[in-house]
Amino acid sequence: MKLQTPVIIVNFKTYLESTGQRALELAKNAEKASKETGVTIIVAPQFVDIARIAEAVEIPVFAQHIDPIKPGSSTGHILAEAIKEVGAVGTLINHAERQLKLSEIEANIGITREKGLISCVCANNPNTSAGVAAMHPDIVSFEPPELIGTGIAVSKAQPQIVTNTVNLVRKVNADVTILCGAGVSQAEDVSVALKLGTQGVLVASGIVKAKDQYSILRAFAEAAKR
Amino acid sequence: MKLQTPVIIVNFKTYLESTGQRALELAKNAEKASKETGVTIIVAPQFVDIARIAEAVEIPVFAQHIDPIKPGSSTGHILAEAIKEVGAVGTLINHAERQLKLSEIEANIGITREKGLISCVCANNPNTSAGVAAMHPDIVSFEPPELIGTGIAVSKAQPQIVTNTVNLVRKVNADVTILCGAGVSQAEDVSVALKLGTQGVLVASGIVKAKDQYSILRAFAEAAKR
Amino acid sequence: MKLQTPVIIVNFKTYLESTGQRALELAKNAEKASKETGVTIIVAPQFVDIARIAEAVEIPVFAQHIDPIKPGSSTGHILAEAIKEVGAVGTLINHAERQLKLSEIEANIGITREKGLISCVCANNPNTSAGVAAMHPDIVSFEPPELIGTGIAVSKAQPQIVTNTVNLVRKVNADVTILCGAGVSQAEDVSVALKLGTQGVLVASGIVKAKDQYSILRAFAEAAKR
Amino acid sequence: MKLQTPVIIVNFKTYLESTGQRALELAKNAEKASKETGVTIIVAPQFVDIARIAEAVEIPVFAQHIDPIKPGSSTGHILAEAIKEVGAVGTLINHAERQLKLSEIEANIGITREKGLISCVCANNPNTSAGVAAMHPDIVSFEPPELIGTGIAVSKAQPQIVTNTVNLVRKVNADVTILCGAGVSQAEDVSVALKLGTQGVLVASGIVKAKDQYSILRAFAEAAKR
Repeated sequence: MKLQTPVIIVNFKTYLESTGQRALELAKNAEKASKETGVTIIVAPQFVDIARIAEAVEIPVFAQHIDPIKPGSSTGHILAEAIKEVGAVGTLINHAERQLKLSEIEANIGITREKGLISCVCANNPNTSAGVAAMHPDIVSFEPPELIGTGIAVSKAQPQIVTNTVNLVRKVNADVTILCGAGVSQAEDVSVALKLGTQGVLVASGIVKAKDQYSILRAFAEAAKR
Repeated sequence: MKLQTPVIIVNFKTYLESTGQRALELAKNAEKASKETGVTIIVAPQFVDIARIAEAVEIPVFAQHIDPIKPGSSTGHILAEAIKEVGAVGTLINHAERQLKLSEIEANIGITREKGLISCVCANNPNTSAGVAAMHPDIVSFEPPELIGTGIAVSKAQPQIVTNTVNLVRKVNADVTILCGAGVSQAEDVSVALKLGTQGVLVASGIVKAKDQYSILRAFAEAAKR
Repeated sequence: MKLQTPVIIVNFKTYLESTGQRALELAKNAEKASKETGVTIIVAPQFVDIARIAEAVEIPVFAQHIDPIKPGSSTGHILAEAIKEVGAVGTLINHAERQLKLSEIEANIGITREKGLISCVCANNPNTSAGVAAMHPDIVSFEPPELIGTGIAVSKAQPQIVTNTVNLVRKVNADVTILCGAGVSQAEDVSVALKLGTQGVLVASGIVKAKDQYSILRAFAEAAKR
Repeated sequence: MKLQTPVIIVNFKTYLESTGQRALELAKNAEKASKETGVTIIVAPQFVDIARIAEAVEIPVFAQHIDPIKPGSSTGHILAEAIKEVGAVGTLINHAERQLKLSEIEANIGITREKGLISCVCANNPNTSAGVAAMHPDIVSFEPPELIGTGIAVSKAQPQIVTNTVNLVRKVNADVTILCGAGVSQAEDVSVALKLGTQGVLVASGIVKAKDQYSILRAFAEAAKR
C-alpha cells in the first residue's frame, strides 16, 4: 500500500472527544474532508475503536501503537495481525507518549513490512529522526515533545529545526515520507510544514479539541493541497 | 456489578486461535457453556476485538489490561472509559505478561472502582497475592509464571502454594475473590482449585489451544459446579 | 542486622550537592550528628560513591536501589552482592523516582533477606503502603510523590494520611518499621511524623540542598530523640 | 579523549567473577595485557566498583550504563557527572541487557559529548546499528543477542552480518568506531572481527568466565595487533 502525499494523520490519542461514538464521528468528518479535497487524511483512533471506524469509513485507519510480538502469550499487548484483521492499514510507532526501545522500533518496522502495514515512526528531534530514517520505515514523523499539545506549531516556532531534520533525514534516506507534528493548530502551520520540505503533518489536539473538527480538518486539507 | 462465583476467566492473550473472527467464535462457545451450566464464564479478548464480542455475547467481557491514565494525551494507551464504552465490564490488571508498577496497580484498582468496572489483579506468588489483596481489588488471581502455558496446573502441581496463597490473602482481605491459574488444562484442575479454597480459575492456552474449545469449556464449567 | 528506631534516612538522590567528594562530606556530617545524638542516621548515596563512604563512616550506608537479579548477565544493573561487598547494609526499593513492578519489589525483599541486607520499600499512598507491608519488608516508607522536593512536609500537610497509612499498614503487619517522607525540611516535621505513629523519616532535599547540612541533620536528630 | 584502535572492551556485567575484589584483579590483568601489547583494553565494571578500579589502573574505565538525566531528583539512577567524578572516561549505552528508548540513547550521546565521556552504543542487528550510527556516538557495537554468552562468535558464525553491519553503518557515518561482540571467546574471533571491517570487540563471559583471564586477554590483544 502506497500513500499519496501530502498526508495528514489525525492522532485521536485518548481524548474523550475522540473516544467511542465521538471517535466515529471524527473519523467521518475526516473522511468527508479527505473526499472533498482529495488530500490523504489518516485517522488513528484508540485500539478498541479501530474495528467500527474501519468498517464505517474508506480513509486509511492506523493503530496508535503495536508491540513487537509474535502471536501467542502476550496478554495485554497489541498484535499486528489483530489490528490488521479489524481493518487497520498502518500504525504509529514510538509516539512521544508511547516510546519504545531502539530494538523494538526496528522489530516493529520489520513486522509492519512483513504484514503489509504502513509504519509511521515518531522521533523527538533531528538526530533521532535520522536514526529512525536509517532503519527505513515508510514514514518518519518529527515532533518536538515540548510543543505537543501547545498549539504552537513546530513549523512556525522552530522552522530551522524542521529544515535541519529534513536535511539529516535525507542524508541517510532518500525515500522516506517525512511528517512533522506538535502544536499544529492552524491551516498555515500545515502549509509552512510542507514548504519546509515535509510531506505532511501529524496532528492531534489541534483537531480533536477543536469546536468544529470538520472545519479545521477541511482547512488543513486545503492548506496541504496548495 | 457483582459476579456470581465460581468464575472461569478465559484469557485470549494474543493467540491467532483467539484473534478476530476466531475470537468471536470462542466467545460464543464460552457463552454457550456458561448458559448451559449456569457457571460464570468471562472472556478477555484482545482490545480490538472487545467491541464486536461485547455486542455479540451476553457473558461478561474483560479487557486484558488498562493503563492508569486519565483521558487525554496518552497515545497508544488503554483508557478505562474507552473499554467501558465498547462494552467491557472489567479488566485483568498486572498479568504476568503485562506487569505494572505497584503504584500503577493501585491506581488501576481505583480507576476500575470509580468507573464501575471489575478488577482482576494477577500476582505471581503467595506474597505478591497478599500484597495485591491488601489493596482491595475485586479479584486476585494467583499464577506462578513458571507454569503458565505448560499444561501442568498449579492446583495439581503445587497445591500447598495455592493453600498458602489463600491463607495469606485471607489474613489481609476477607472478601476478595481468589482465582488461581497457570497450566489449567483439565476439568480436574478446576475442581481441585476450588477445593483448595479458590473461587475459580484464570485459563488461557488450556482453552484457546484446545481442538474443541467448547467441550473443554463445558467440562471446566461442569467441574466448577460440583 | 536490626536498626534502632527512630531512624532518619538521608537519600542523596543524584544531586550534585551529594555527589562524589560532597557525598563523602555529607556522610561525615550525618555520622557526626548521629554520634552526638545517638539517633540512627542512614545515608543512601549514589552507587559509585557507596564504597568510599562505607569505608569512611561508621553509620549504615544504603543503596538507592537494587535490581531483582542473580549474578550473571545483567549489564548495567545493580547486584545485591556487589553493593554488599562494598559495604552497603541495606537498600531503598521502589522509590517514587525508581519504581518497580510488584513482582520485582517482592523479589528484592527476598534477595535482601537472603543476603542479610535491610530493605526499605517506598510507597506512594496508604493503599500501596499496606500492599508493601503485606510482603514483609524491614521498613516501609510512605511518600506522597506530589510533596517530594516541595519543602511541605507530609506530616504537617496531610497528617490524616500519615495516620491512615500507619493504621492500614498495622492491620496487615504488626512489626514493620514505618517511615514517612516527602517535603521533610524542618525539625518539627520529624517530631510530628513520630507523633503520628511512624518510626522515622526519609529525607532528601531538606538535607542535601540545605546551606548547613550538619545543622539541619543535628536538628532532625534532636527532634527524633524527644 | 580519543581512543587508539583496535579496541577491546571487557564488560564485567554482574558476574561474581568480576565483582568487588575480583573485579579489581580482572582490571589489573587487563591493564597488564594492554601495557604488554600496546593494544587499548577498556574495562567496564559494575558501578560500585568503578571508583576503586579507576584509582588502581591506568587503562580506560567505562560505566556499563548511564541514565539520560540531569543532576537532581533521580533516586537510583546513574548520573554522568557521578561516574566521571570517580574516574570513568566513557560508558556503554543500550547494551542488550540494558536497553533504552531511542530518545534516551540520543540524549545519552549528547550528555557524554557534553561531559567529555566516550559513548559506546550497542545495537542488536545491522539496521539498529545504522540507526545508532546516524546519531553519531563515538563507538557503535553490534551484538546479536542470540549469540551473547554462547561462546559462538558472531565474527565466525555470521560473518556476512558483520560485513553487512559495517556497510550499513558506513553509509550513514564515515567516522564512528565499529565494534562487534557476542560469543567472542577465542583469539581468532578477534582477528576475524577486525578483518571484517570492525575496529575491535566487546567481550564479556569469554574473558570473565575464563579460568585464566589474563592469558585470554593477552591472546585477544595479540590477535588484535596483527
